[in-house]
Amino acid sequence: MQSSFGGYNSSMTTRKPLIAITQGDPAGIGPEIIVGAWQHPAIHQRCRPLVVGHPEILRRAVALLGADLRVVEVGAPEEAEPSPAAIPCIRAGSDDVLEVAAGALDARAGQAAFDALVAAARLALAGRVDAIATAPLHKEALRRAGHAYPGHTEILAELCHVDDYAMMLYLGPGAPLRSPAGLAVVHVTLHTALRAVFAELTPQAVLAKARLADRFMARLMDTRPRIGICALNPHGGEGGLFGDEEARILRPAVQQGLAEGLDLAGPLPADTLMIHARDGRFDAVVAMYHDQGHLALKLLGMHRAVNVTLGLPIIRTSVAHGTAMDIAWSGRAQAGSMIEAVGVASLLAAGG
Amino acid sequence: MQSSFGGYNSSMTTRKPLIAITQGDPAGIGPEIIVGAWQHPAIHQRCRPLVVGHPEILRRAVALLGADLRVVEVGAPEEAEPSPAAIPCIRAGSDDVLEVAAGALDARAGQAAFDALVAAARLALAGRVDAIATAPLHKEALRRAGHAYPGHTEILAELCHVDDYAMMLYLGPGAPLRSPAGLAVVHVTLHTALRAVFAELTPQAVLAKARLADRFMARLMDTRPRIGICALNPHGGEGGLFGDEEARILRPAVQQGLAEGLDLAGPLPADTLMIHARDGRFDAVVAMYHDQGHLALKLLGMHRAVNVTLGLPIIRTSVAHGTAMDIAWSGRAQAGSMIEAVGVASLLAAGG
Repeated sequence: MQSSFGGYNSSMTTRKPLIAITQGDPAGIGPEIIVGAWQHPAIHQRCRPLVVGHPEILRRAVALLGADLRVVEVGAPEEAEPSPAAIPCIRAGSDDVLEVAAGALDARAGQAAFDALVAAARLALAGRVDAIATAPLHKEALRRAGHAYPGHTEILAELCHVDDYAMMLYLGPGAPLRSPAGLAVVHVTLHTALRAVFAELTPQAVLAKARLADRFMARLMDTRPRIGICALNPHGGEGGLFGDEEARILRPAVQQGLAEGLDLAGPLPADTLMIHARDGRFDAVVAMYHDQGHLALKLLGMHRAVNVTLGLPIIRTSVAHGTAMDIAWSGRAQAGSMIEAVGVASLLAAGG
Repeated sequence: MQSSFGGYNSSMTTRKPLIAITQGDPAGIGPEIIVGAWQHPAIHQRCRPLVVGHPEILRRAVALLGADLRVVEVGAPEEAEPSPAAIPCIRAGSDDVLEVAAGALDARAGQAAFDALVAAARLALAGRVDAIATAPLHKEALRRAGHAYPGHTEILAELCHVDDYAMMLYLGPGAPLRSPAGLAVVHVTLHTALRAVFAELTPQAVLAKARLADRFMARLMDTRPRIGICALNPHGGEGGLFGDEEARILRPAVQQGLAEGLDLAGPLPADTLMIHARDGRFDAVVAMYHDQGHLALKLLGMHRAVNVTLGLPIIRTSVAHGTAMDIAWSGRAQAGSMIEAVGVASLLAAGG
């Protein structure tokens, strides 16, 4: 299993950060990728991990993978004594989740995922864990449990009373990327119909995301992060022939950002910009809509990509994939993104 | 230099096809990539190439690269005797192009590119060459010469009196692709503002592109091409939460295509679909708008990608990059896409 997070240029603290990993939807691949990640030595070198979820679900995942691991239920993060041989687990949610079938869309599983997320977020808000790393939940199961959110990020923003936040995709350094600190991709619009993008696109929104990307990458670099701004239209609008958003919205945003001292370039045609980003000419990219950023980052390293929620008062990372219900509880899920998610959370919590 | 076009499963004809290569904008990298491609043995094994442009410009490119090549002006394609040592060139355009500076946006260069394209297309329409492969032109130079077209494709469609055409991006077989015959990407909308995509998207338009992709890939394969249809919205519309085009336009198009016998799947979230396409689960992809297709294909193999215009009565391929004015006439341009463009044109002309 590939992991890049040994490669960051960060100062180690003497006390390893305490990272709460949420179990996600118990019917999905969350439990097994947590167990898979636990078996990766790098995790224990960089942090003290614990799980928030149902201990019995976790024991089933340990059995599924035939892992030599004990699950130890603890009442509080202060009691956790994580080791490569023991998973401390703080119980969240009720026992009815034990009846949920593997791969099923089930309100009880949605509720369990919600409960674990809320519990972990509250521990982070209270400063009792240093960061949270979340396993995937399923929006439809969540909705069936009565929680109509597009995803984790919006739940966390509400819990934290934050309006100016962004989900960032982050790929750590390593091939095919040539940038020294990896590549961050921030979206101006995300979980919305493509048709609704135009109304959400303002110079302020673009600039807010550029500032968040700058602040995040600055923690990983000694130099000012170089940020590329994607054009909305093909060929960057072709001088106004293919749309006016570049002139009306994006160029003013770039001008203002430059005046603030950000190292911005663009708007540049997105297809070309992503090639430049891969080749090391940018440390971060501001994408205008979901697929613009995701298409590129998934092709550049789907199994290594991590979500980081920017703008929250807590540190939160997440795997960049879904619940993969079709392969859940078969033991085939890859733990790479979870390993990276815990690694990036550790790095950020250690002041990286 | 990498070339995949020796790898197709095609039947060779005894007579090699005659391929007319247009010179493109003389201020751009067209002339030097033609000379670069000429030095690649594979070209001469698969076809008899000739150039349509200005012989003196071509001689300058030969001198720039220090190539051991003669440029032989010919009056008609029937007189061409191409060899690895001699480039037959049919003169198009006037001598004033000789005064154009390297890298300059110049109406005279735009006119020269237009003249070469029209001359080559007429030769193909008359059956006097078997296919054309075009070097890049610059839209702005073209516009300054009084020709307001978004690109080659629209000029050719007009010359050929064709309405139902598509520009296809094609990447030949080879890493990172796992599909046996390469990957075709067809766009339902292309050179248009993102805001204008919605009005152009109809079940008929989607189906027309799927049929073109099927017909093209069927020439390269023994089995029915497997075609993935991209969703327009993120997460494939998330069951209607993020837009209704999937239910209203794309699913009906897929249903009708399946009824016609096409092997269609989708609409699938574009970011996931492109991963599947890379991994060999599709032979062709129908993208809804420019960046959706270009983002993926450029990351998968920018220097090997080739444009193929589908739906024309003539065979036409093109490099998948622009005039690269910033590096033109420096000898640094890569000829890979031109080599592939001539190779794919040869293959199609040979009945591949």
